[in-house]
Amino acid sequence: MKSQEPVQALRFLSKKRKERLALIGQLLSQQCYDLALLQEIWSDKDYSELRHRLSDVFPYTHRFKSGVIGSGLCVFSQFPIIDCLQYQFSLNGFPYMMNHGDWFCGKAVGLVKLKAYGFLCHVYVTHLHAEYCRENDCYRSHRILQSWELAQFIRHTSNNSDVVVLAGDLNMHPGDLGVKLVREWTGLKDSYLECTEYEGPPDGCTLIPSNPFTDPQELKNFPQGIRIDYIMYKSAPGIAVSCQQVTTGSQSSRSDTPFSDHEIVTATLRLQRIPGVSNVNSESLPSVVSPIFSSCCTEIYTGLQTAERWSTICRYLVIMFLFLLALQCSTTLLSVLGLKCNIFPPVLMTLLFLLLSSLFLVLHTAEQRQLQSVIEQINLVQHGHE
Amino acid sequence: MKSQEPVQALRFLSKKRKERLALIGQLLSQQCYDLALLQEIWSDKDYSELRHRLSDVFPYTHRFKSGVIGSGLCVFSQFPIIDCLQYQFSLNGFPYMMNHGDWFCGKAVGLVKLKAYGFLCHVYVTHLHAEYCRENDCYRSHRILQSWELAQFIRHTSNNSDVVVLAGDLNMHPGDLGVKLVREWTGLKDSYLECTEYEGPPDGCTLIPSNPFTDPQELKNFPQGIRIDYIMYKSAPGIAVSCQQVTTGSQSSRSDTPFSDHEIVTATLRLQRIPGVSNVNSESLPSVVSPIFSSCCTEIYTGLQTAERWSTICRYLVIMFLFLLALQCSTTLLSVLGLKCNIFPPVLMTLLFLLLSSLFLVLHTAEQRQLQSVIEQINLVQHGHE
Repeated sequence: MKSQEPVQALRFLSKKRKERLALIGQLLSQQCYDLALLQEIWSDKDYSELRHRLSDVFPYTHRFKSGVIGSGLCVFSQFPIIDCLQYQFSLNGFPYMMNHGDWFCGKAVGLVKLKAYGFLCHVYVTHLHAEYCRENDCYRSHRILQSWELAQFIRHTSNNSDVVVLAGDLNMHPGDLGVKLVREWTGLKDSYLECTEYEGPPDGCTLIPSNPFTDPQELKNFPQGIRIDYIMYKSAPGIAVSCQQVTTGSQSSRSDTPFSDHEIVTATLRLQRIPGVSNVNSESLPSVVSPIFSSCCTEIYTGLQTAERWSTICRYLVIMFLFLLALQCSTTLLSVLGLKCNIFPPVLMTLLFLLLSSLFLVLHTAEQRQLQSVIEQINLVQHGHE
Repeated sequence: MKSQEPVQALRFLSKKRKERLALIGQLLSQQCYDLALLQEIWSDKDYSELRHRLSDVFPYTHRFKSGVIGSGLCVFSQFPIIDCLQYQFSLNGFPYMMNHGDWFCGKAVGLVKLKAYGFLCHVYVTHLHAEYCRENDCYRSHRILQSWELAQFIRHTSNNSDVVVLAGDLNMHPGDLGVKLVREWTGLKDSYLECTEYEGPPDGCTLIPSNPFTDPQELKNFPQGIRIDYIMYKSAPGIAVSCQQVTTGSQSSRSDTPFSDHEIVTATLRLQRIPGVSNVNSESLPSVVSPIFSSCCTEIYTGLQTAERWSTICRYLVIMFLFLLALQCSTTLLSVLGLKCNIFPPVLMTLLFLLLSSLFLVLHTAEQRQLQSVIEQINLVQHGHE
């Protein structure tokens, strides 16, 4: 089985979008991939064009819609898609961080079930919240929460599968806590680490300085590049799966323009039934998981403290603006009675700020509850498996 | 196995909250239930009190947090909870419908896994969006979307279970499309319809006129009451499950105050292993499901048209206010140059309306995408199973 994960940034403002879309279409129609798992296909028109162009090679396709812009996740398959399920992460940045925009995409994990070569495959495609500043990352707790939800979603929905494949832009380095959590808690293997043959940039990097679309600022501490895009896999006990080859690259032979700002990751998996082994999944907690759980709780707790601080500030602001509004109304009343008192800002300004601070309060209270919720879930699962 | 679903409205403004909480605590501590699945436990304090009080009878408990207020869903169990997963519905009303408030709760379905009497039980607790006006129900498409997500979540997460139990306030009558969808698509059986012994109001009604907390307006077309709270169940092929008894009621013997505005539903299930039958789930589409899918798509499509209409209106409003703002800025510039032109409303008012219309645009665009997404998912699943 050959699966491919071409990560691409087809934002409305992305450079040479049309050209790159045509290149991706060309690549996917020429190579004999079984599956192509794409991220950042934000535009309905782009998806339709790609779908139309690839209808012969990939007759089966599904795109996961969520948020305001859409999750950008889609699957192109040679095999009929039997079923699908989408899980939108409960936290994903904030709408007021317009310059980042992750909130508007409604980041999610999409699952499609398909039967390939007689194997029931559960294929997951995802894209986690971006990391804008590694040193002072205010979205760290959100990304760890998303890693937990991703891992739990895979664990709970992959029970009767023969093979599980996860592909996506996790926006985390291989050693990061969230990647460890996903790998250890789901039992998924990282195709780059497992493959017998690898072709591409050193360390399997998918964000490399030679790509003209890459922001050099992002790689200032990593001159070689970073690996943030993954294809992972696992199989049920009665089935052996091994990764024969991984290739990473983004350069088309026919054009100087790369397909995307991320390198494309391609993995070739070999599936084989082992006779005499029954297909029963075990539900034990690997010993390595416990310290990862604790670290996750610590990280999420830090985020929770920030969320609590923000919601307290917002609560005070709401009270203050409500109080100011009451004062303004009473002075308006006084002015009707002929007494002038014009020391306050206009009522409309107060209303505007009241609305804004209420919005912030709602968002940070929801954030607080979700972070608390995940800490409680991790604790419950940890104790339940002890 | 005896499971209970005491639905209760413990809102901040609910009447006799403390007294009812004490009565519920008393009931749960005296009866020998295996499981108690509660909804509308909004307050952290109420949950803590109940948890503390019931710690001897129900040593294992979990509450699902989501949204701003919280989903209100919680599970009290005699058996250790092994694992949990929460799925927040992708649509759930609107934040500007403050008088309804469903949006703030982040309605969800919670799953806990537990081992009871040697059976691996997947227990789901849920609460769908309320129905405020049956004749002109603007949340109909949201509730059908939630029913679809509930059914899909159960189907995809219950594969390796011995027994599945779903309890909750579905806010739908037994014949409603959403209930049909959940029952047929998951294969869950309605305990009230299956039980050999029933005790309680006629037709298993859980919202009855004699309950002093019930709003008479809600039941004006249903003088006998309505049944909107359910306990459903199914088992894996190797296990037989039957419902021996269902009781519905809300009156405590010690007090005139009922436990809740909804009647409590209690079901006694009998579980038995059938020797010689292998535990393998089939993945076929029941013939009755296809027309239900079509009806759901039609209903959701109606909602989609409304969402599209709203987002178009909001888009025009945003453009209009942006244009007005530009005009106002230019007149301010003119007034600086000594030319007076004071025909426009204050800039702050324009800003306020711009902000509000942008918010509405975001919400209705997200609604539109989610409704589209579910129509596509239903179509995919339908064709995938053909």
